[in-house]
Amino acid sequence: MPNYQLLNDLSKIKGTSGDESLIANFLHNYISKRISEFKVIPDIYYGEEFHDCLLLKFGNPQTAVFAHIDTIGFMVRYNNQLIPIGGPEAETGYILEGEDDLGPIRCKLIENDGALYHDFPRAIARGTRLSFANPWTIDEDFISGPYLDNKLGIYNALELCETIENGWIVFSTYEEHGGGSLPYLLHFIQQTAPIKHALISDITWVTDGVQHHEGVVISIRDRHIPRKKFIDRIIALAKESGIPFQLEVEANGSSDGREIQFSPYLIDWCFIGAPEDHVHSPHEKVSLKDLETMTAMYQYLVRHL
Amino acid sequence: MPNYQLLNDLSKIKGTSGDESLIANFLHNYISKRISEFKVIPDIYYGEEFHDCLLLKFGNPQTAVFAHIDTIGFMVRYNNQLIPIGGPEAETGYILEGEDDLGPIRCKLIENDGALYHDFPRAIARGTRLSFANPWTIDEDFISGPYLDNKLGIYNALELCETIENGWIVFSTYEEHGGGSLPYLLHFIQQTAPIKHALISDITWVTDGVQHHEGVVISIRDRHIPRKKFIDRIIALAKESGIPFQLEVEANGSSDGREIQFSPYLIDWCFIGAPEDHVHSPHEKVSLKDLETMTAMYQYLVRHL
Amino acid sequence: MPNYQLLNDLSKIKGTSGDESLIANFLHNYISKRISEFKVIPDIYYGEEFHDCLLLKFGNPQTAVFAHIDTIGFMVRYNNQLIPIGGPEAETGYILEGEDDLGPIRCKLIENDGALYHDFPRAIARGTRLSFANPWTIDEDFISGPYLDNKLGIYNALELCETIENGWIVFSTYEEHGGGSLPYLLHFIQQTAPIKHALISDITWVTDGVQHHEGVVISIRDRHIPRKKFIDRIIALAKESGIPFQLEVEANGSSDGREIQFSPYLIDWCFIGAPEDHVHSPHEKVSLKDLETMTAMYQYLVRHL
Repeated sequence: MPNYQLLNDLSKIKGTSGDESLIANFLHNYISKRISEFKVIPDIYYGEEFHDCLLLKFGNPQTAVFAHIDTIGFMVRYNNQLIPIGGPEAETGYILEGEDDLGPIRCKLIENDGALYHDFPRAIARGTRLSFANPWTIDEDFISGPYLDNKLGIYNALELCETIENGWIVFSTYEEHGGGSLPYLLHFIQQTAPIKHALISDITWVTDGVQHHEGVVISIRDRHIPRKKFIDRIIALAKESGIPFQLEVEANGSSDGREIQFSPYLIDWCFIGAPEDHVHSPHEKVSLKDLETMTAMYQYLVRHL
Repeated sequence: MPNYQLLNDLSKIKGTSGDESLIANFLHNYISKRISEFKVIPDIYYGEEFHDCLLLKFGNPQTAVFAHIDTIGFMVRYNNQLIPIGGPEAETGYILEGEDDLGPIRCKLIENDGALYHDFPRAIARGTRLSFANPWTIDEDFISGPYLDNKLGIYNALELCETIENGWIVFSTYEEHGGGSLPYLLHFIQQTAPIKHALISDITWVTDGVQHHEGVVISIRDRHIPRKKFIDRIIALAKESGIPFQLEVEANGSSDGREIQFSPYLIDWCFIGAPEDHVHSPHEKVSLKDLETMTAMYQYLVRHL
Repeated sequence: MPNYQLLNDLSKIKGTSGDESLIANFLHNYISKRISEFKVIPDIYYGEEFHDCLLLKFGNPQTAVFAHIDTIGFMVRYNNQLIPIGGPEAETGYILEGEDDLGPIRCKLIENDGALYHDFPRAIARGTRLSFANPWTIDEDFISGPYLDNKLGIYNALELCETIENGWIVFSTYEEHGGGSLPYLLHFIQQTAPIKHALISDITWVTDGVQHHEGVVISIRDRHIPRKKFIDRIIALAKESGIPFQLEVEANGSSDGREIQFSPYLIDWCFIGAPEDHVHSPHEKVSLKDLETMTAMYQYLVRHL
């Protein structure tokens, strides 16, 4: 059964790329409260020196799990114009929320031939960030709402904190808008307690080869191609685990794995996460069963890699 | 009042991306002559070990100012064809200059359905670099001519040398053609005297939200998004300073800030510069008032960050 | 006269980006057999710590030669779909080969409005990699077949092993699909025995300025622009050598040079290789004379740089 309280808390926090301080602060508070219950007490790396990232080192790591904490959204330009942060779906009528010096903002998105506007009655300060306003809904089969990508990846990483014995759990920033925190995080990890493997705790796509309720997705590739030897090993372990999973093969899409691929360290990586449909819209939708197999698979892999 | 002599000298030096040795040499000579008048004598890093870059370390730095020294232009291919260096405007009739083993070259650019040619009567050696030939004009309100981007960013950095007490001033290469010097420069800086902040001394765009004569531009974002916490601090300092400034929010465009964002160091960055119109053409145009507020803002920020 | 045995052996090994273990293993075996005949015995860096890369350090290096060992190809997605690895030519009728858990595969490629399929009678396992099946043919003037890019770059590097006294020879992975091994390789090299120059041993294009039989190509630029000072020095040495060569100026195309350009080290680089036509098809074609001048030019440059 999912941790409804944690899901509920995560659903309420806004944090577009470059503005992750609220979610980082939430994570720090949550971990501080839970830490005494963790099987292994981790070292915590957090604070201005780490910008809005947070790292946990459990035991003697060989593997790191990365969950990005930023979301897509919109930024106010001039004359009611909006420009995207990351790659949001943009349909007229979507409800957006934010805040500037004059107070809270709630408005509608207007899409006109690719150009984006808001309909707020007053001017909004330049650079103000707006996010989808919709609340989440959870029924017996599905969770839906905005920013399941990557609130559920964060959820998975937090659940893993409870039982992990050896490994890094890393909360990264900027992933939705081209990245930028991984180069530092990898540098810090390799200086502090180096790893050989990385798992990307993120949400992927329902497609013609990947369906709801069929289990967590192990991605053989997206726009980038992890090393075959490592993927073969992950798939062999996944089969051993008995946990349902699906294999993904995509030509597009990217993740924090990209920056591991291009880092100056030879770290094997693999994207593993539940699939969603209505990606980057206010109506992202993930199967609870797929979420459950995601957390189970991470427990298994981190122990056996 | 601007330093007309320095502007005049800067206007005369050609240096497309990858061929910055003349401008680097000019900077080294200029700094060598002026250095005894500087408030603080910097350490100078220059020479073959630094390729065509130049770094100055003043006092105990927390902040670095980056000014790229390369320009856009054209390279001769085969059969009178030209290909771009960076992203130049290309209109038939623009006058280009350069030199190959057979002597100096002055010719016209011909644009035909996206393909570019020169009209020089003889073949030009493969790989020869051509630049816009136009001289600058300066009147009471405006400076105009080619390569204000980034000769004025260099000018601003050189003016700052006179009074800066603590900080790096860094002259980078290759910015117009995808970058490539920043990764080394940042590595060197962080090994030598590490920084927390970077200001990008470069020229931006007049748009529907940014006008001539309204003051230096502080960019909240371009294609890349600096960290909100840092931009908020810059804007707060800018307000304190009393110096006129404008806020920019753009979906496109990039600068040396990009390579800071993707570096393995957590360095906050912000692009601050005067706006121009007719970008990357032979007729770039910048308000003298905006240039003046640019130099004033850099003096203030480097002291107060 | 070319080393027909080595060419023949190289032609038989498959290895798309991310799956380079067979070719790396071949190289290790080949070098182990030949090493006692080398003029200088190199240090060999190979094994799981280096993923599927291999490095050789001869004497006291100033220069490194990079040859990528991966090839383009195709990966099986769902429902008989294929997606590209790197940028292969894709025409209906091309014969593809590979293997999955159920056995060897030989099938035809079908291209339909940009979408790619195979015609194998049974389903192929997701993530299976397919390569062009054609054998090479060698006559008096030309060598032709798939993957001359970069089997001939590897060939050139192996021939160079016989006589090189000082320098790194480096076999890299992933080049055809965005790169990713160079950042590590450069880091390792600079920690172990740092270099100032790099030569990219790879195959380029026959164009309206570059012809078969006219000699090895020295590339003044492709999508990226190496530093002019270094290219000028290479061209001066090439003239001294008396070996026939051609100068290339291209707006597009890229190589391992890209990752050197964007690395945190100031290493000058230059692409030098024979040209081919029918690039990334099953019918790549290279002049034997151009291949011969390629190996001669590398011998000369590595000695004189």
